[in-house]
Amino acid sequence: MQIRLFTPGPTSVPAEVTLSMAGPLPHHRTPEFRTTFQRVSAALREIHRTPDPVLVLTASGTGAMEAAVVNLTSPGESVLAVNAGKFGARWGELLRTYGRDVHEMTLEWGESPEPAHVREAAARHRARSLFVTHSETSTGALVDLERLGEVARELDLLLVADCVTSLGIHPIETKSWGVDCVVSGSQKGYMLPPGLAFVSLSERAQAKLAANPSPRFYFDLGRALQSAPAGQSPWTPAITLVLGLDAACRRILDEGLGRVWHRHAVLAEAVRAGVRALGLELVAAHPSNALTAVHVPERVGADAVRDTLARRFGIQVAGGQARLQGKIVRIGHLGAHEPADILLFLGAFEAALSAHGHPVRPGTALAAAQPVLSTLGGEGGR
Amino acid sequence: MQIRLFTPGPTSVPAEVTLSMAGPLPHHRTPEFRTTFQRVSAALREIHRTPDPVLVLTASGTGAMEAAVVNLTSPGESVLAVNAGKFGARWGELLRTYGRDVHEMTLEWGESPEPAHVREAAARHRARSLFVTHSETSTGALVDLERLGEVARELDLLLVADCVTSLGIHPIETKSWGVDCVVSGSQKGYMLPPGLAFVSLSERAQAKLAANPSPRFYFDLGRALQSAPAGQSPWTPAITLVLGLDAACRRILDEGLGRVWHRHAVLAEAVRAGVRALGLELVAAHPSNALTAVHVPERVGADAVRDTLARRFGIQVAGGQARLQGKIVRIGHLGAHEPADILLFLGAFEAALSAHGHPVRPGTALAAAQPVLSTLGGEGGR
Repeated sequence: MQIRLFTPGPTSVPAEVTLSMAGPLPHHRTPEFRTTFQRVSAALREIHRTPDPVLVLTASGTGAMEAAVVNLTSPGESVLAVNAGKFGARWGELLRTYGRDVHEMTLEWGESPEPAHVREAAARHRARSLFVTHSETSTGALVDLERLGEVARELDLLLVADCVTSLGIHPIETKSWGVDCVVSGSQKGYMLPPGLAFVSLSERAQAKLAANPSPRFYFDLGRALQSAPAGQSPWTPAITLVLGLDAACRRILDEGLGRVWHRHAVLAEAVRAGVRALGLELVAAHPSNALTAVHVPERVGADAVRDTLARRFGIQVAGGQARLQGKIVRIGHLGAHEPADILLFLGAFEAALSAHGHPVRPGTALAAAQPVLSTLGGEGGR
Repeated sequence: MQIRLFTPGPTSVPAEVTLSMAGPLPHHRTPEFRTTFQRVSAALREIHRTPDPVLVLTASGTGAMEAAVVNLTSPGESVLAVNAGKFGARWGELLRTYGRDVHEMTLEWGESPEPAHVREAAARHRARSLFVTHSETSTGALVDLERLGEVARELDLLLVADCVTSLGIHPIETKSWGVDCVVSGSQKGYMLPPGLAFVSLSERAQAKLAANPSPRFYFDLGRALQSAPAGQSPWTPAITLVLGLDAACRRILDEGLGRVWHRHAVLAEAVRAGVRALGLELVAAHPSNALTAVHVPERVGADAVRDTLARRFGIQVAGGQARLQGKIVRIGHLGAHEPADILLFLGAFEAALSAHGHPVRPGTALAAAQPVLSTLGGEGGR
């Protein structure tokens, strides 16, 4: 059966991106590869909406998070980390591992922090840096990054944002919002396989890392900054994934960033309309457009529904993590998804819920989603 | 023009490996992927000749080197590192970065350390660990890892070996030689694109890392050890490269490890016979079978020869690094190479040298190589 990924990453890789990785392997220390790497870097800056450098690391998103921590903070430095889910908690774990003076602002899973509360906590702890999660992949909750940027500027905090499931999905104005460091990973909005991670660095972030004595080597962003202008990376990069990135960035910029964001907004709203029509409740108070996390009644069983989706339709969705394990389903609608994908998903979701005793009138979710999808217009908005 | 990689990594990826990475992307938290990951882990143990775990990291080989340093040594610990080239020097840099008490045994580039001298230096510095480079990619020199294993056992040293350009090329008996940690990378003997790195851990190495308070997160091998038996990795792995690894390991084990080692030995000997017949001198006193580094007379020009190989024949070879920049050519003959590849390379090399004024009687290198290649027998030894 065909694999149909509706997980919040990895997401399906478009055929043209797959093909770009299937040719003869080039060497990375050649003029041709340097040109590709420079073109990719320019595209990344465009997608991040910043003239500042965006570095490419061969690692998962967690590697990029570690790079932000070890380059941009020093041992003993007071740092505020917002924790409203598994990935927010990871900032705290990383910062504690490296001996930073971490103050965690812990929220219920599914909630998003009030910028005013963040401001108050940062001021109280005399924090020098603020670590947040733009789109919390464990709950599907979105944070108001623009307003957190205002808070950071007001208090002169270095702002580091995990944008792993928001980059290429939600508008992020890295420069004008004052986000000093945006962290992301290849298997999400970029529509690539996992293996690459990205870190943007404002001028302030570059100055801070240059003065930072904290030990690092593989994740030393200073080395990466130095070699990037020549289209190189300090260590051998994952060459095929860089070629795929080139194709994926071209696809994003050909569609147009504004259209990409709009398509995600419409598809996400259609999924939310569909699942609400089925009587399911969202986990997130302020939902992200990358994924929709929904509570599945205990008598129905979230994991039973996931199994049925996989077995009958080849559809992969994610389950709950940590405290939400077995209680929710997380539906990814990020990357290359189109209206047709949402229709097939909602149809299958109705059937799977119904198979496990959830009362469903067939067509309910589709009926709720169709008017939303129709706002995209011709060519699925592209 | 077709890209023909004769670099000491990355090396060409066989078609069946490329195709294994070009299907629909699977999710990594599925029973199917767990099964693949477990099969790959078993194959890696077989290729490493050890029953101990071999962990898969999403990183370049340098990432795996860092993982060995931060997991297996503690701040202030006395460590002996052998430095006879760029990659030996990297052990020292890494160990110093993380505050280890590093004693470097520095040799001329191209030399290989005498085990007796290593023993003496380790004893003098009361070293607890020994970091070596099995095949030094900057010079093409090979080290007697088996005898260094004896030294390590005698002095109760933890032995860590960079086998990035020897694993899958030279015999390595990880278990019986007592190598506690073998570090390798995907773009060499594995015939994969770069992006994965590997770390084997003896029982002694596992015990040492469990007791090691040194901070680490992305490269925390304790986490990787814990999730490996279930066919998982702590962070999202480079899924497509793991699928490619599955195909590449099958290819290696189908050919047979002994035959793979023998093929590399014969191809390397043929290249050495060819370049010697052309009057060129090897950089390494004890040459590795992964690559052949040769001095190119200054009036001919190593980089001019490389340019001509690339322009006229699509052949990529590597140049010298650091102090050998512009002085040597490094010819990679590792991975999927067959006798026909050696013939085309030597033919092209003769032409390129001749084009830049080196006195060459056409056919000299081929004539010297042919008798060596003929010892492989039918099917190129496979």
